[in-house]
Amino acid sequence: MTAPDTSRPQLRIRSVALDTGRENVVVISRRSRALRAEVFRGFSRVELRCNSRALLATLLITDDDSLVGPDEIGLSEPALRRFAEPVGTLASVSPATPPESLEAVRAKIRGETFSDKAIASVIEDLCHYRYSDMEIAAFLIGSASFMTSGELLALTRAMASAGTQLKWNAPIVVDKHCIGGIPGNRTSMVVVPIVAAHGLPVPKTSSRAITSPAGTADTMEVLARVNVSVEEMKSIVAACNGCLIWGGHVNLSPADDILISVERPLSLDTREQMVASIMSKKLAAGSTHLLVDLPVGPTAKLTSGAEAMRLRKLFEFVGGRFGIAVEVITTDGRQPIGNGIGPVLEARDVMAVLANDPAAPADLREKSLRLAAHLLEYDPQLRGGAGYGRARDLLDSGAAMKQMQKIIDAQGPPECQSRLGDLAFDVKAERDGVISAIDCLQLNRLARTAGAPINKGAGIRLFKKIGDSVQQGEPLYRVFTCDPSEHDLAAAAAKAADGYTLGPSPFLDGGTR
Amino acid sequence: MTAPDTSRPQLRIRSVALDTGRENVVVISRRSRALRAEVFRGFSRVELRCNSRALLATLLITDDDSLVGPDEIGLSEPALRRFAEPVGTLASVSPATPPESLEAVRAKIRGETFSDKAIASVIEDLCHYRYSDMEIAAFLIGSASFMTSGELLALTRAMASAGTQLKWNAPIVVDKHCIGGIPGNRTSMVVVPIVAAHGLPVPKTSSRAITSPAGTADTMEVLARVNVSVEEMKSIVAACNGCLIWGGHVNLSPADDILISVERPLSLDTREQMVASIMSKKLAAGSTHLLVDLPVGPTAKLTSGAEAMRLRKLFEFVGGRFGIAVEVITTDGRQPIGNGIGPVLEARDVMAVLANDPAAPADLREKSLRLAAHLLEYDPQLRGGAGYGRARDLLDSGAAMKQMQKIIDAQGPPECQSRLGDLAFDVKAERDGVISAIDCLQLNRLARTAGAPINKGAGIRLFKKIGDSVQQGEPLYRVFTCDPSEHDLAAAAAKAADGYTLGPSPFLDGGTR
Repeated sequence: MTAPDTSRPQLRIRSVALDTGRENVVVISRRSRALRAEVFRGFSRVELRCNSRALLATLLITDDDSLVGPDEIGLSEPALRRFAEPVGTLASVSPATPPESLEAVRAKIRGETFSDKAIASVIEDLCHYRYSDMEIAAFLIGSASFMTSGELLALTRAMASAGTQLKWNAPIVVDKHCIGGIPGNRTSMVVVPIVAAHGLPVPKTSSRAITSPAGTADTMEVLARVNVSVEEMKSIVAACNGCLIWGGHVNLSPADDILISVERPLSLDTREQMVASIMSKKLAAGSTHLLVDLPVGPTAKLTSGAEAMRLRKLFEFVGGRFGIAVEVITTDGRQPIGNGIGPVLEARDVMAVLANDPAAPADLREKSLRLAAHLLEYDPQLRGGAGYGRARDLLDSGAAMKQMQKIIDAQGPPECQSRLGDLAFDVKAERDGVISAIDCLQLNRLARTAGAPINKGAGIRLFKKIGDSVQQGEPLYRVFTCDPSEHDLAAAAAKAADGYTLGPSPFLDGGTR
Repeated sequence: MTAPDTSRPQLRIRSVALDTGRENVVVISRRSRALRAEVFRGFSRVELRCNSRALLATLLITDDDSLVGPDEIGLSEPALRRFAEPVGTLASVSPATPPESLEAVRAKIRGETFSDKAIASVIEDLCHYRYSDMEIAAFLIGSASFMTSGELLALTRAMASAGTQLKWNAPIVVDKHCIGGIPGNRTSMVVVPIVAAHGLPVPKTSSRAITSPAGTADTMEVLARVNVSVEEMKSIVAACNGCLIWGGHVNLSPADDILISVERPLSLDTREQMVASIMSKKLAAGSTHLLVDLPVGPTAKLTSGAEAMRLRKLFEFVGGRFGIAVEVITTDGRQPIGNGIGPVLEARDVMAVLANDPAAPADLREKSLRLAAHLLEYDPQLRGGAGYGRARDLLDSGAAMKQMQKIIDAQGPPECQSRLGDLAFDVKAERDGVISAIDCLQLNRLARTAGAPINKGAGIRLFKKIGDSVQQGEPLYRVFTCDPSEHDLAAAAAKAADGYTLGPSPFLDGGTR
C-alpha cells in the first residue's frame, strides 16, 4: 500500500461573465486539478471553502480552457459577490451536503407538515442562498397543494423576520395593497398623496413588474427616484407623511423576492403563498392598518366572489394573529382602471387625476377616492362615513397634488428620463358595436410585447371601455413602442387577438363577434 | 408614426463548451442583436427556430464576447445535437411559450388529478426535451404527495410507449428486478446464466449506478461490452437465451432516464414513481414474467415488512393490468450480499460463485439460487418446488459458468480494461466483539468516496459479516482506491464512521459500542 499524496489541490478563483440570475453558479474544467468532473453531472451542488468562508453553488462543467482552466474555478457574478474573496484566491471545492432543512421539504412532499422550526430553517437557508433554484421549487411545489394555517403563520413570521424590520413612532401606520392583475390601476399613486395630505403616515413600498407591464415602483420611477434606502425612507416619511418607493431596495422580506423569482418561471400562484408574501412584507414594514384590494372579473386573478371570500378569510386570519387590522374589499376587475397601460402612460393618468384635469380617467379617480376613504377612516376623528368627503376635498382642493409634489421632491428626480414611445399604431374596431368585454390578460401581454416595463415609454392608451359604442374603423386603443422589432411583434400580437369583445351594435342588427 | 424596420435580426449558431447535463441551454450576449437580454432573467426559456426546426432551451446571458458575441447564439452540446443545424447557421430566437402539458402539471399541483391524456402529453413533451429541469421537478414533486391508481397506470403506459419496445417470439420471457440499495448484491449476473442455461429467455437490461457504487451494467462491463444495440441484443439472446447489457443504450423508457436525472439531485424517491419506472421498462422490454426482489433491513430502502407489503401490492396491481405475471419476494437486506462492493470486486464475487470456488461468498450463491429457482419455475415442466434443485445442478455442474462465458463472448470484450485499485487501506475493529449490524448506506457512500463506479477498481472488500466475531485490530474490510486524493477522502470518511456496529464480545464482558 503506497503512502498517498496528502495535499489536496486547490483552485484559483476567477470571474466568469455568465448571468445566472440570483443563483450561485461555479464553472470548473472537465480536466480540473481538484475536482473529478465525471463525479458530477449537470447542475450538481458543490461547496466552495476558503479561510472560514463557505459557499454552496450549482456546478457547470466546461471543456473551454479560455473560460476556466484546469487549475481555476469560475464564479458567476452573484457567487463572486457573496463569496467575497478576491479573484486569484485559492479555494477548495467539494461535493456539497444539501442544507439540513431540505429534509423537512422532502417530508412535506411526502405529505407531512412543517413544524414552525422547520419553516424558519428553510427561510434562513433560502436567505443565505443555500438553496438551488430546483430546491426552492421543491419547497414551493411541496407546499402548493396544501398548507395548514399553522404553516401559513410560521411562513409569514419567518419571512417577515428575515430582512429589514421597520418601526414607526406612530399609533396608526396605514397601507394599501392590491393583489394585481388589472392593467393600469395605479391607485396607490393617488391614494398615498391624499392620505399623507390628511396627515396619516403611509410609508408605501411597492414592487416592480414581475409578469405585468408595470408595477407601482416602475410607474413612480417615471416621476421620481424610487431606489431609496431605509434611512432616506424614514426622513421622507417624517417630512411628507408618505412615500412611494421600491420595496426591493429596502430589503423587506428578502425571502419573498427569492421565492417569487422561482414561482414566476413555473407560473405558480397559490393563495397561501400569496398571503404569506404580502403579509410578511406588511409586518416587516410596520403597518398597523391594511386595506387589501381584491379585483374580481373574468380575466382578473380572482374570477368569482367565492374565491375572493376565501382569500379575504386568509388575510383576516393572518392579520388577526399578527395584530394588523386588515380590511379586505372586492372591486370591479372586469377591465383596466385608467386609460394608460405602461409606466409613462400610467404616470400621465395619475398626474391628470391629481391635477383635476377634466380629461383624467374617471374610473381611476373614483376608485382611488374610495380606497383613500377607507384608509382615512382609520383616523379616529373621521369614523362614520366621513372618509370619502375628506378624500374628495383633499383631491379637489389641490392638497393631494401639492403633497405628491412634496413626495416627488423628497425622493428626488428620476434616475433616468423616460418619454412616450414614438413608434405607435392604432387597433381599430372591425365593425360597429358596443364593447362588452376587455381581456386584462391579453392587454397585459400586449403591453409587455410592446416593451413595457423595460421601455417605460412603451404601452397602450385605451380610447374605449366596456359599455362604449364604437363604429367600424374607430380606434379602440393605441399601442406605443420604442423599437421597430417590438413594434412588429406587438402589431402581430394585436392582430392575432386584440383583447376586445363587441356585443351587438345598438344601431345595427349585428351578430355577436 | 414611423414605418418600422420589418427585418427581425437573426443570430449565428456557435457551440459553447459548457456541459449542461441533459438540459438544452443556449447562451446569448447581453448586447445581443436579436434578443433584448433585459427582458429575460436567469434561466428563462426561449425558442430557437430555423427552417422548420424548433428547439426549447434555457437561456444564460453572458457579458463575455469571446464566449458569445452580439450576433451569435451559443448552444451547449445537447442543444446543438438536438437542433441538428450546423454551426454558422442563422436562427431566430424568441421567448418560449411553455409546453401546453405544463398546464396539467400546474393543475396537479393545485390538487387535481391527471387525465390519461394529460400524462401522455407530459411524457411526450419530456421525451422531446421541451421541459426544463425545473419543469420536470414540478411534475415529479406535484405527483409525489399522491398519485391515484389511474395516474400510476397512465404514467406506466406513457413511459413504456415512449421508447424502444421489444417483442420476443417466445411464450415466456422472464426477468428479475431488485429495487437496489444493498451493496454488492450482484445476483443478476449469477441468475441470468443459470436461467439461460436452462433454456428460458432472459433478456436482461440493467442500469448503471445512479447513487450507488455500482449498477449491474457497471459490474458486467468489467467482463464484457454492455453498450449493445437493440439488433445486437436480439442476436445475443437468440444465441444464448440471455444477455446482461446496459438498458440506457437500447433506449427502453427514455422518459424514465430523464425523470431520474432530476429525482437524483432532489433525492426524491416515491413508491408510485418507482413502480412506474420499473414496470414501464419491463413492459417495453417485452417481459411476460417478472420477479421483484425487495430487500428489507434497517439501512435498506425498505425498513419494514409493512412498507414492503404496500410496494408489493402496487407492483402486483400494475403487473396485473398490463398482463405481466409479477411475483414479489422480500429478502434479507440487513447487510451487503457478497464480499465485494464496486465493479471489479463484485465481478470477482460473481465469477467465484459461477466457478464453484470454495472461497466464493455463500450468501451471494444462496440468494442467486433462490431467485433463479423462482424464475425457473415459470417453466411449466418445473412447477412444484423443482426450481431450486435445477438451479443448483446448473450451477454446480458448470453449465451456468459455460453459459456466462457464452454470453460474455457474444457481447464482446469490455471497451476498457479495469483492474483493482492499488492504493488500499484496512479498517480494523477497535475492540473485540461480534458484528451486530452493518450500515448499507454508509458502505455505499464510502465506496463512492473511494471512487466507484467511475474508477471500476475502487471499492470495498468485506472480511466480516453480521454474526462474525472479531478481535481488536483485526481488519473488518479493505478499501481500494486508484487515486491518492480519493484514498485520503475515503480514509477520513472511514475514520469518521466505519459502518460496523459491534455487539458484546462472546469472549469478554465488553460494553456495547
